[in-house]
Amino acid sequence: MTGFSFSVEATDGAARTGLIRTVRGDIRTPAFMPVGTAGTVKAMLPESVRETGADIVLGNTYHLMLRPSAERVARLGGLHRMMNWPRPILTDSGGFQVMSLAQLRKLDENGVSFQSHIDGTQYLLTPERSMEIQDLLGSDIHMVLDECTPFPATEAEAEASMNLSTRWARRSKAAFRQAPGRALFGIVQGSIYPHLRARSAAALQEIGFPGYAVGGLAVGEGQARMFDVLDVTVPHLPHDRPRYLMGVGKPLDIVGAVVRGIDMFDCVLPTRSGRNGQAFTRRGPVNLRNARHADDPRPLEEGCRCPACRQYSRAYLHHLVKAEEILASMLITWHNLTHYQDLTEGLRDAIGKGRLAAHVAAITSGYARGDIDPP
Amino acid sequence: MTGFSFSVEATDGAARTGLIRTVRGDIRTPAFMPVGTAGTVKAMLPESVRETGADIVLGNTYHLMLRPSAERVARLGGLHRMMNWPRPILTDSGGFQVMSLAQLRKLDENGVSFQSHIDGTQYLLTPERSMEIQDLLGSDIHMVLDECTPFPATEAEAEASMNLSTRWARRSKAAFRQAPGRALFGIVQGSIYPHLRARSAAALQEIGFPGYAVGGLAVGEGQARMFDVLDVTVPHLPHDRPRYLMGVGKPLDIVGAVVRGIDMFDCVLPTRSGRNGQAFTRRGPVNLRNARHADDPRPLEEGCRCPACRQYSRAYLHHLVKAEEILASMLITWHNLTHYQDLTEGLRDAIGKGRLAAHVAAITSGYARGDIDPP
Repeated sequence: MTGFSFSVEATDGAARTGLIRTVRGDIRTPAFMPVGTAGTVKAMLPESVRETGADIVLGNTYHLMLRPSAERVARLGGLHRMMNWPRPILTDSGGFQVMSLAQLRKLDENGVSFQSHIDGTQYLLTPERSMEIQDLLGSDIHMVLDECTPFPATEAEAEASMNLSTRWARRSKAAFRQAPGRALFGIVQGSIYPHLRARSAAALQEIGFPGYAVGGLAVGEGQARMFDVLDVTVPHLPHDRPRYLMGVGKPLDIVGAVVRGIDMFDCVLPTRSGRNGQAFTRRGPVNLRNARHADDPRPLEEGCRCPACRQYSRAYLHHLVKAEEILASMLITWHNLTHYQDLTEGLRDAIGKGRLAAHVAAITSGYARGDIDPP
Repeated sequence: MTGFSFSVEATDGAARTGLIRTVRGDIRTPAFMPVGTAGTVKAMLPESVRETGADIVLGNTYHLMLRPSAERVARLGGLHRMMNWPRPILTDSGGFQVMSLAQLRKLDENGVSFQSHIDGTQYLLTPERSMEIQDLLGSDIHMVLDECTPFPATEAEAEASMNLSTRWARRSKAAFRQAPGRALFGIVQGSIYPHLRARSAAALQEIGFPGYAVGGLAVGEGQARMFDVLDVTVPHLPHDRPRYLMGVGKPLDIVGAVVRGIDMFDCVLPTRSGRNGQAFTRRGPVNLRNARHADDPRPLEEGCRCPACRQYSRAYLHHLVKAEEILASMLITWHNLTHYQDLTEGLRDAIGKGRLAAHVAAITSGYARGDIDPP
């Protein structure tokens, strides 16, 4: 695992703050990874993504294997060079989006065959091919191919799915192409069943990975059940390896997961919401499409360091959203990513100072107040 | 006209280079004004627009009066403050877009009534209301309300239309609300008829304006006829006032118009093309959607100072265009605006050095070569 390491620097209860080191740069944890679906964090220049405070971005294997194709990315010098993001990149395995986006998908022991949702081309994704693709993309953290167990699932369904994911994890590790500073993470499955989660975690550790993800959450089970699953899963994960909660989440999902010992997150929410006129603030979400902002000269969020808040009014952002201007997506995405980075920065700081509980209480009460001040 | 002035600094044949001074900053001529239709130069942060070299942007009265409305812009501190562009802004009169975009429009001596293309609201645009709106927007250069004579027009139609525009120009000047550094420009009409253009220019000078636009061109007449009209119109305009060719154009249209003594231009082409995957280069237009770019690791244009060329490959830009990523619009628009600003910068420099003919020959032969090098 040359060039890849993780150290816990401070803990506060189950929560930890630490540092992942890779050859392409350090990742401060808890870390939020903006999603760069198709080789771009939508509506952002990569240097602006970095300005928000991001240490790492995520690339989607499914999208990239379809277009422009992993082989083409490799010919262009890899994903970092192609998208002008020299820092760490994590790629998922492609499995999750095959199951949610692709057509005519067929899953068996070998892998998943499917048709591209873009042009109908036939593909086969196996653990071996997923490792090959992630190697071609050249990301720093690879993910094993797994089946994201649908929710709800019976115990028998969840067990069969978890066992398949375990076999695929073993094949993924065997096929993983090591490179300096590169790591392959395992993914714990088992739906909402504590003993399945424990068995999955144990089986993966027997295979051995430098990091572990918790998968199969944020798929409709709700925040309370998600936290329940973390409560029974995280204790089965090794203390000295980073823990990544995939596809999560809303700000308070992240806060609750950090409290439960999670180190890494990714989610399309800040970027997707940014393109829909929805902003995240310390006082909860603000829908800038709402007519009440039309004459509001105040910044979206007082004291925020992002360009949307420093240089524009709510009224102008409202106008841009209504007029469907690209600048609306650019500015609100920038704000939202800044919000998420400031959230994790605040959590890191609070954990380091041993005052996480008070910090979480302050965040929670801020969100609860709501964005209700009259102009 | 306190705070607004124009000085010709050098000439080369009919071409001139000079400086317009306003209280919000200087405008180097020949100048290209990026179009900020609805209070934003589409897909660009204003600081990025400035980085391309733009001294002034254009705002569209028609779009802004409909949404967010001139009164709302005024309440938000004016257009400069609302859109975070502290430098000069020119607003058109709204007339051109009423005739091209609005519904149920009816033109008579008083003005134009129409329905918003956005929500069907009924509006009336008169010379007086156009001046009021441009005052509320707070732009630095206002344009008289005119009728952009459709092409083709018979001589009788063109004469009647030109005479109406002259009467509206007089009413516009009477209603114009002076402010420090603010100027109102007249607009020469007369279609393709030399004696009508001459009469229009004379009538406007009798009214008296600090700048003169040539209107009614770039409406389908073709480059040769446009140049013919400039040849017979520009000599009737005063040497000591800026000359603005409205809505023009392609790079070689601008070059030919500068040679004929035009100082200012605006056009949606670099921004609109940027959103359609079309890039302007010194070797002519490049359609980045074309599959031949899919594996091309070269920059869009060698030596270009814009971020699209400095940091990305043609293959990546092609990918972004195909994937309909917002970043495609952002980067290609940035490139195109840089191209247009470099074009006018080069023309200013050549005129200053008295070697415009050689410079124009070099530009023209560059465009003629085409973008044909194999990767």
